[in-house]
Amino acid sequence: MTESLQSGLLVEAFDAQLFRENAETVLSRLEKHVADLSIRGLELTDPARLRRAARALMTTERDRPAPFDEERLAAIVDLYIKTGIQVHSPGYMGRQFSGVVPLAGVIDFVSSVVNQPSSFYEAGQLPNVVERIMADELNRFIGWDPGTFAMITTSGGSLANLTALLAARNRAFPGVWARGSSELEGPARPAIAVGDDVHYSVARAAGILGIGEDRIVRLPLDAARRIDVARARPVLDAAERQGLNVFCLVASAGTTSVGAFDQLDELAVIARERDLWLHVDGAHGASLLVSDKLRPKLRGIDQVDSLAWDAHKMLFVPAPCTLLFYRDAKASLGAFRQTASYVFDEQQNIYTALDSGDKNFECTKRPMIMTLWTLWAIYGQALFAEKIEYLCQLTQDAYALVEKQPDFETVHVPEANIMCFRYRPDWLEEKDVAAFQVAIRDRIKGGGNFFISKVDVDGVAALRVVMMNHQVTTEHFQMLLGEIRKAGQEK
Amino acid sequence: MTESLQSGLLVEAFDAQLFRENAETVLSRLEKHVADLSIRGLELTDPARLRRAARALMTTERDRPAPFDEERLAAIVDLYIKTGIQVHSPGYMGRQFSGVVPLAGVIDFVSSVVNQPSSFYEAGQLPNVVERIMADELNRFIGWDPGTFAMITTSGGSLANLTALLAARNRAFPGVWARGSSELEGPARPAIAVGDDVHYSVARAAGILGIGEDRIVRLPLDAARRIDVARARPVLDAAERQGLNVFCLVASAGTTSVGAFDQLDELAVIARERDLWLHVDGAHGASLLVSDKLRPKLRGIDQVDSLAWDAHKMLFVPAPCTLLFYRDAKASLGAFRQTASYVFDEQQNIYTALDSGDKNFECTKRPMIMTLWTLWAIYGQALFAEKIEYLCQLTQDAYALVEKQPDFETVHVPEANIMCFRYRPDWLEEKDVAAFQVAIRDRIKGGGNFFISKVDVDGVAALRVVMMNHQVTTEHFQMLLGEIRKAGQEK
Repeated sequence: MTESLQSGLLVEAFDAQLFRENAETVLSRLEKHVADLSIRGLELTDPARLRRAARALMTTERDRPAPFDEERLAAIVDLYIKTGIQVHSPGYMGRQFSGVVPLAGVIDFVSSVVNQPSSFYEAGQLPNVVERIMADELNRFIGWDPGTFAMITTSGGSLANLTALLAARNRAFPGVWARGSSELEGPARPAIAVGDDVHYSVARAAGILGIGEDRIVRLPLDAARRIDVARARPVLDAAERQGLNVFCLVASAGTTSVGAFDQLDELAVIARERDLWLHVDGAHGASLLVSDKLRPKLRGIDQVDSLAWDAHKMLFVPAPCTLLFYRDAKASLGAFRQTASYVFDEQQNIYTALDSGDKNFECTKRPMIMTLWTLWAIYGQALFAEKIEYLCQLTQDAYALVEKQPDFETVHVPEANIMCFRYRPDWLEEKDVAAFQVAIRDRIKGGGNFFISKVDVDGVAALRVVMMNHQVTTEHFQMLLGEIRKAGQEK
Repeated sequence: MTESLQSGLLVEAFDAQLFRENAETVLSRLEKHVADLSIRGLELTDPARLRRAARALMTTERDRPAPFDEERLAAIVDLYIKTGIQVHSPGYMGRQFSGVVPLAGVIDFVSSVVNQPSSFYEAGQLPNVVERIMADELNRFIGWDPGTFAMITTSGGSLANLTALLAARNRAFPGVWARGSSELEGPARPAIAVGDDVHYSVARAAGILGIGEDRIVRLPLDAARRIDVARARPVLDAAERQGLNVFCLVASAGTTSVGAFDQLDELAVIARERDLWLHVDGAHGASLLVSDKLRPKLRGIDQVDSLAWDAHKMLFVPAPCTLLFYRDAKASLGAFRQTASYVFDEQQNIYTALDSGDKNFECTKRPMIMTLWTLWAIYGQALFAEKIEYLCQLTQDAYALVEKQPDFETVHVPEANIMCFRYRPDWLEEKDVAAFQVAIRDRIKGGGNFFISKVDVDGVAALRVVMMNHQVTTEHFQMLLGEIRKAGQEK
């Protein structure tokens, strides 16, 4: 009989009591991690050394101890936490990764153990139902007709952008899905217009979809690093004259580099004039919609065709949790088409009507919405609005501080929680400015107290802070400025 | 000062003590869930009713109670667990979703709280290092040159297949990334050859990449539902005569429908003859590589160009955790090309050499490897090999049982842990066979004890079991046969 095959190893690994012990080991460490508000940046380890440390933690079959080696697990978790980006520390100002609301991590723990894939209603009923609820909750801030819009979840902003562009491509070139490239041939070549600061995933999408990265039409930016609406039309006209058929316009709600918000209402006019699909990469900035105060930054959002929104950025849940909204639900069906009898039932019923496998890239998909919905169910909009408003205000205050320093320069007025600036002491020569910022960034990282990033603005490197952690205050930012000055004196 | 903006809501939501209480609430429920070995299938709920239940659990801002409402959280988790697929129950035989090793869920909990995105070394150092370790560990079973192969992780098998096909397309048509469709034009149209039972994501990939779903060349299957090698060459010849340029051949190691393994060694000969990229969709079956006994099913794996392998299927970790292997590391760089100063450093150093953002779809990527590596570090290969061997043996035993029943028919000899069969009592008319299987599947689902699936085999619906849970024994399968007979008598 097969059941006799089950060895002690399997019994141990699936033992509920051991599961509790393992979880307690981990929980005590995570609790300490969440409570630790010390100022710390990054401890960058030589990969070869870290590799040896990791190898040393691996059991060889021969010496696997019984009972379970709880010490080994503890050592693994300690090493994992210690060598990562410290998103919960006030020293963390470097990237768009979120210091998650701890409860979201707890719900994600449930998802990891119960393992309900959510592309199909029957496999994860609650995730599929609350996906619809969250769609309605968030659409209150967008303002589409509740009966005709659609939302799907997917694994990251890059995939959401790709999915939307796929839907746009298939709408503009209906034969391309089945017959391929030949359908993209015509009097003019397909092309996508983007703001010059658009996320790299959009240009990539053109490469992936057979449109070609060279067919990206880059629209110039204005002084605020938004798409320059006045200059957009002539550039689009020129593209047409050069034999391009622009079918889609991608705007950003919160560019990655400086957090600029394109003027969606004005771009929507252009899109209507030219019958372009208007997609908004709101991976970073769409979350401002949940704040009554900050919502006007996305004026015109109700007139766009699609919107990518990373909940794992400014809605503070574990990555990935990306929402892709379509103004017209029918358009969401256009991204993919296929048949597969083992997953797609031939006839829809009340259950399969909630399936999303035909609308997203993933077949097996994590029930990512559960973290967001649970926070929303328990804390409501207020938690998110308060944190986002705090972070944006903090960034304004940090900007005001930089403005006051004679040896620093600002490079833009922050619209959200991202600010780029440069350290330019008077002895610094113009030609060295860019390399100096990179060196400063590296020294700050090496210093271990703060984690900041760098980005090129107008072709010249700048320092960049992204305020994702409400434990950060202006005092911490002042400390950072002090560290930058100190780092600038190192040679 | 900005710090005064922090309200009680944020303080509460990030409180470490509350985090512990929330986690304890959840843990006690998960412990019970893991320990519950009762036989249960699916409790399918009317979505409208479930939606009302979920809505009832949501706080309105006005009445949000203080302190934290632990009861509400408990009710959410209870509803979540109860309405999902019961992967830990012996009644679960329906899909390829894994009943995860509980420790993997515990490690995933760490990932959810520390939130280290792993596309970049600096953000998640340990995940990036152990990704290399796991690549080496698993390559022991593949057998490539340790110095020149590559492995990336990505969010699901569909994406892994798409990534590999993208690399294959770009290798065959070097100009397509930049210049798009026009580069796919030539004397012959690009096409992809697949086994007729290939996963739907492969045909989809052709639609996505601008190749066209119609350019999928379907190779006929043999009696074991593998690609029929003898008939493959003539079909490929015919495709060429019809003006197609087949550049890639996709084989399956464990088809989704019946778990058939294509003969990789023989297909590799064909691929070499015609300079085709040979990709293997091993999402389901690549895990057999870790068993010394079952590894021969994948004979020839060392001669393929790329392999997609879902660890969230038969390596029993939470979804998603997909591994994509390339025989030639250089090929892995060909899938995407872009520049973006804020994420890709211009000059590689020992740290950025481990970055994977330029090789996978995701910019923000979950450190999915941590669950697999931790299990491997603590339990080694043995845990996986034992469980997989048990599941495959169980499926053989179930097959032997079905063979003995006069009123059932088998439709293939199971090669792994998937078996399709039909219930055909003597009174059943030929024309009703297909509809009857679907009705049986639905009644079994409705009965609430077992969860099985259905799939079309040779165009006719069949019942399908996938043995993913080592708590299932032949006794359980016999009970299932009894339930099927009972369900067949309902009218």
